[in-house]
Order: sequence, then structure tokens, then C-alpha cells
Amino acid sequence: MAMDYPPLRSVPGFSWLGINLGLKDQTLDFGVIASECKCTAAGVFTRNNFPGAPVTVGRENIQNGQLQAIVVNSKIANVATGQTGIEDARKMCLWTGEALGIDAELVLPSSTGVIGRRLPVNKIHEGCKIIPEKLGSSPEYIDNFARAIMTTDRHPKWCSASVENSTLLGVAKGAGMVEPNMATMLSFFVTDAQISSEQLQTILRRVVNQSFNRISIDSDTSTSDTVIILANGLAGPVDAQQFEKAFSNSAMQLAKEIARDGEGSTKLIELKVSGAESQQMALQIGKSIINSPLVKTAIHGADPNWGRFVMAVGKVFEYPVPLPDLSINFGTGSQVLSVNAESLNADTVNLDAISNLLQNQEVFLEVVVGDGKYSETVWGCDLTKDYIEENAFYTT
Amino acid sequence: MAMDYPPLRSVPGFSWLGINLGLKDQTLDFGVIASECKCTAAGVFTRNNFPGAPVTVGRENIQNGQLQAIVVNSKIANVATGQTGIEDARKMCLWTGEALGIDAELVLPSSTGVIGRRLPVNKIHEGCKIIPEKLGSSPEYIDNFARAIMTTDRHPKWCSASVENSTLLGVAKGAGMVEPNMATMLSFFVTDAQISSEQLQTILRRVVNQSFNRISIDSDTSTSDTVIILANGLAGPVDAQQFEKAFSNSAMQLAKEIARDGEGSTKLIELKVSGAESQQMALQIGKSIINSPLVKTAIHGADPNWGRFVMAVGKVFEYPVPLPDLSINFGTGSQVLSVNAESLNADTVNLDAISNLLQNQEVFLEVVVGDGKYSETVWGCDLTKDYIEENAFYTT
Repeated sequence: MAMDYPPLRSVPGFSWLGINLGLKDQTLDFGVIASECKCTAAGVFTRNNFPGAPVTVGRENIQNGQLQAIVVNSKIANVATGQTGIEDARKMCLWTGEALGIDAELVLPSSTGVIGRRLPVNKIHEGCKIIPEKLGSSPEYIDNFARAIMTTDRHPKWCSASVENSTLLGVAKGAGMVEPNMATMLSFFVTDAQISSEQLQTILRRVVNQSFNRISIDSDTSTSDTVIILANGLAGPVDAQQFEKAFSNSAMQLAKEIARDGEGSTKLIELKVSGAESQQMALQIGKSIINSPLVKTAIHGADPNWGRFVMAVGKVFEYPVPLPDLSINFGTGSQVLSVNAESLNADTVNLDAISNLLQNQEVFLEVVVGDGKYSETVWGCDLTKDYIEENAFYTT
Repeated sequence: MAMDYPPLRSVPGFSWLGINLGLKDQTLDFGVIASECKCTAAGVFTRNNFPGAPVTVGRENIQNGQLQAIVVNSKIANVATGQTGIEDARKMCLWTGEALGIDAELVLPSSTGVIGRRLPVNKIHEGCKIIPEKLGSSPEYIDNFARAIMTTDRHPKWCSASVENSTLLGVAKGAGMVEPNMATMLSFFVTDAQISSEQLQTILRRVVNQSFNRISIDSDTSTSDTVIILANGLAGPVDAQQFEKAFSNSAMQLAKEIARDGEGSTKLIELKVSGAESQQMALQIGKSIINSPLVKTAIHGADPNWGRFVMAVGKVFEYPVPLPDLSINFGTGSQVLSVNAESLNADTVNLDAISNLLQNQEVFLEVVVGDGKYSETVWGCDLTKDYIEENAFYTT
């Protein structure tokens, strides 16, 4: 179930398209974001040691902090395709640049889908030629773009915010092979605020670290993860702190949407680990729990099997927690049910009430590991038969 | 599908039982191994930071290198039960010792099942009283013991070997929450060979490290993992090297059986990572691949999606591998199909043939990561809807 989406808002100076080039089926599979002027730009990319060709070319093109367009295809990720793949990604930029009348180096390429296959370059060439006639800036164009970058996502994902008189708009896709590290699947933000590329990069790193780098769908880190922000400056300068706050909120919303829409998932899990002795301790314990298949399946079945949380905390060998210091809180607000060392045996725990809480489509958990001052929040989803179905019987 | 089991062989001096105490249903749930004399003993236990009470008591009792009996229950793991749990585990030893006429400290307790519930001590007390009349040394008693320690296992697991004129017999259970580290779920070996406890401990550590520590079913490290070996010495001394070799083969067989019988699994995966620059590099890449849900589901569906292997190698950030150095070999012996950087796009790879190989119930894979001299072999299983079913809708 998707969140209540805010209406889509255009951002002055940016136009969009999402069209079908027949790369997979009849659905949209090719998208472009174009700015009417050069933008400052910042990006973070996957830490996977086999980055896709578009990531390699994208890193080169964004190096000087300037971009004017983004071109994306779904279905084929253009990863593990060697020098040919690099050339294919450069061609995507060249053809897009030609169509828009800008340098190829001002275009960031992005591809998502199956690894190890060559891009259907002829179809993409044909698509690039019609970019100018297909671009538009009204919400339906943005919606089409958001759909064109989807793979196994069930619905498009966007969010927007206002900062003074400027607008920030972000679009993302997720679904599978998602445990971003340093970056995430694909997420593109645009704003008409005026910000230098250095400042944009600093802010982007902090924002990504607290949002996309805190989600995990299946512990698999994609080779294509990319987050980009373009700022065209048309609205003039804005307060950097306000901007970062709005950006951070938007990114966190999108990150949660990606977790909620994880392949086969039926529930969004929000997990806070608190009372840790260090940030690293909180994060590692959080990741261990959110990635545990036994925790994920228990939540799927609303099984109040809190022993699996104990196991998942305990398998983080580096950070032993004394059992009396551990408590697991199910729920949020006034509806919190706690399990700890004093609930020595299950008789004193209201398992039925915990099971009821686990039946919600948003599951809130807090695991307290001591009285330290560090905490971390991570997001994930349940593990279901549909995840198996999608990944065993379809090539994604 | 189970391996072809060798017939069960008794070991002189050891007797066994497996009976039903009504801990879960009508199936066997309580087992004992008893030796007619004191044994030298060695053990390794879970590295999980919340070891079960039986692990804590077992570590104490085995400290002086001597044991004479092992008492095991399934259904309740006696973990996260605090001081009460420790006392319950000690009582299991006391009652078993009373029944057998030996010190409580010569008994190793072991429990497997749900975490966070108290042992049904009254039922266990009643069970201990009838130990003497239920013990026997012939194969059906050993078979009953092997069944009594099962949880979600589909079949009992054992193996045996001869070393000179002595016999070695091992029994194990696995199924879920299995990524042993330092030890494994439950595995008990007995032999009538004569070996000192120090030598036994040294051999055991080496053997476990190459067998049980190389399997993963679901990346979750149990709180109860235990491997014990008892040597009663009745057959006199044996050659230590020969013994270690036989022990190692047996442990590896049992470890593979545990992987093959992983919860919901339909296939055993044997993965060799070779050409690594260090043992650690080979092992970490092996674990990353064997634990990747996208690799496991692809193998389940016989999807020749080799890009997922590239992803899983690349997400081991510490050990980057140049793409041209990577190749993935499917199959074994004369039937090997190789994918590497030169198979630039899928057209040059015989995907159908790879898919055929992946349809086998034993899937052999070799991932070559360079021309280094280190390699590691790990075992795992596919990820299926039955894993979800068992873990979402049953409290295990």
C-alpha cells in the first residue's frame, strides 16, 4: 500500500518525459529530465565493486559539478558489459545531448534492470531522436518519468517540498537488490534553488547517509545505485539549513517508500536501535535485525517470536549486549509492548497483543541495547513468498 | 532428497535413546547418549552473544575434558531465560546423572527450539526417570536419538567411519537459523578410539572450521549451536592423522546434509571460490554469494542470471576484483559452463544449458576471482516459498 502521495508539483525550468521504446513490453521504459539551463549537480553512487557502465560514465560527467540532463532506461542495467558497455552509455549521453542541443558531458546516463546484457542501442537511439517533441513540464510528464524508471516496483515514487520560494522534487525507484551503501538504487532530485555544487555534494552525502543508506530490502547491494540532485538556480539562493532539512525529509520519505515497496513485501518495518555505545554499534545491530530472514518472516506472519530478535542482536559478535540490558519494544506512541529479561518466560508476555501489532502494515520496533546515548533508525520490509516468486521465476 | 545413508553402526560402550515426552506433539523430543565409562570430550559452541543456558552449562561441564552422557530436548531452546534457565539446564544434568548413577558434571545438556520460553521441567524430570529402561545400543536406538533432536529437519542425519579398529559415529540436526560460526546447530560424535581431550579439542576445532563453519542456510547464527565429541577409549589408541581425516570427512558429510535439508530447500549448493589473494578473501566472497537471497532464488528457479553472482562478488567492498579476472563456472567435471568478461553479452552464453545444470538437486559452482592461490568451499541451499511458509506461519 502506497503512502498518501502529495500532488505532483512542477519545478520551474525542468521538463520530463517517460515513454515506451519496447525495451521490455508495452510499459514505459525510457525517461529524460532536462533543464533549460546548466545546473549545479551532486551525486553519490553504488559502492559495489562492479559498478555499471552508466555509473562509471556518470561519475566522469558529474565531476565538474555541472549537469543539464539525465537519461534513464529500465530493463537492462548495462553492468558487467566491459568497454562496449561504457561506449553504449556514452552514446546515450551523446544522442541525448544532440537532441537537446547540449554537450554530451552535461548528460548523466542511468540504466536499471538485468545485469550482464548489452543495451539495445538502436532502440535507444531512436528514442533519443524524439526527446524534444515528447518533453513537458506538467505533472503527467513527471509521473510518466517516475513510471519509466520502474522495474519490479509496484508504483511510482516521488515527493516534493518547498524551501522559501523554491521547490524540491525527488523521484525514485527501488524494489529488489536493495541494501544501498553510500547511495541507493535510482533517485533523482531537482530544485530551482541556487546552491553551489560543492555545498550540494556535502548536503547530499549527509542526506543520503540518513535516508537511503538506512534501508534494506534484501541485503543485496546493487551495481547501479545512484542518487543525483540538479539545482538550476532559477529561484535564487535559499537558506542552506532549511534546504537540507527539506531535502532530508524528502529523501527519508522516498527511502521509506522504497522499503515499503520492496519486492513481494506487505509491510514497512521501522526499527530504532537505541541505548548503544556508539553510532556504529546501533547501526550494525539495526542492520543485523532488519536483514534477518527469520525476523522478516516472523513479521510477515505476525508471529510474536521475539526470541529471533535476541538471536539477531546476539549474532553481531563485535558488540555483545548483556541480556538484562536488552529490551524489545513493539509498537509506537501509547501502544508499546515491551519484552525484556524480566519477561523470563513467555507466560508473562502478551503474545497475542504483540501479534496484533505485527499485523499492521507499518510495524514500529525499538530495540534498546543499553543506556548508551547513540541510536539509529533503519527501514526494511517483510520477506514473503512473492519475493521468492519474483526472483526465482523471473529474470530481474 | 537425502543422501544415500550408510547403515547405522553401533559404537561399543555407547547406548542411546530417543523418546516422546509430549514436549511438542507425538513425535520424539527427548534423547540421551550414555557411555558405560568416562569419556574424553571436546566441544565447540555458538559465538552468538546470547548463548542458550545449556551452552553455558555445557561449557562448564566440558571444561575438564570429561563427559559420560549427553541429554537433549527439542521444541524449547532454553535461551534468553536468565538464571532460571541456567538452573533448569543444571537440573536436566542432575536428573540424568541420577538415572545413570554418574555425577551431574559428567552430563552435557542441550536444547533446541523456540527462544525465550522456559523448559517444561516437570515433563523432563519424568523423562529422566525412565532413562535406564529406555537405553539401548542397537541401530534403532541411535535412529530414535537422531529423530528426537530434530526440529524442522525433514529427516535424521548421521554418518559413520572406521579408523583402524575403532568406529566413529556422528549425529546432527540443522534446518533453520543456520549460519554456524565457530560451531553449528547440534552435532554429536562418539567414538571408541582412545584420544586425549586436548588432542580431541585441537582436532575438533580444525574439523568444525572446514565443515560446519562453511555452511549457511539463512545467514542467521543460532544461540544453541553445539558440536561435541566423546571418546570412550575402548578400542585403544589410533593414528591421530587417520582419525582426523575420517572425522573431517564425516563432519563434512553431515554439514552438507544440514545444508541440503535447510528449511524449505530443494537443492544443495556447493560453491568453490578460487584464485583469491587470501583465505579470508575467498571465504568472504563465498559467504556473500551463498547468502545472497537473489542468488539463492535464482538457483531455486534455475534462472541462469549470472549477473547476480557479479553483484554478490562486488558487494564485498574489502576485496575488489577486476571484472576481466572474474569467471563463474556452472557445473562440475566434464560439464562445466563458464561465464566471464569475454561473454560480454548474453548472446555468447548458453543460458539454456546453464539453466539445465541449475535444475539438478546438487548445484556445483566455482567462482574464480583472480590467479591467487587461495580457495574456499562453502555449502548452502536455495531460498523457496516453503522457507517463508515455515518461518512466517509457524513459531520455530
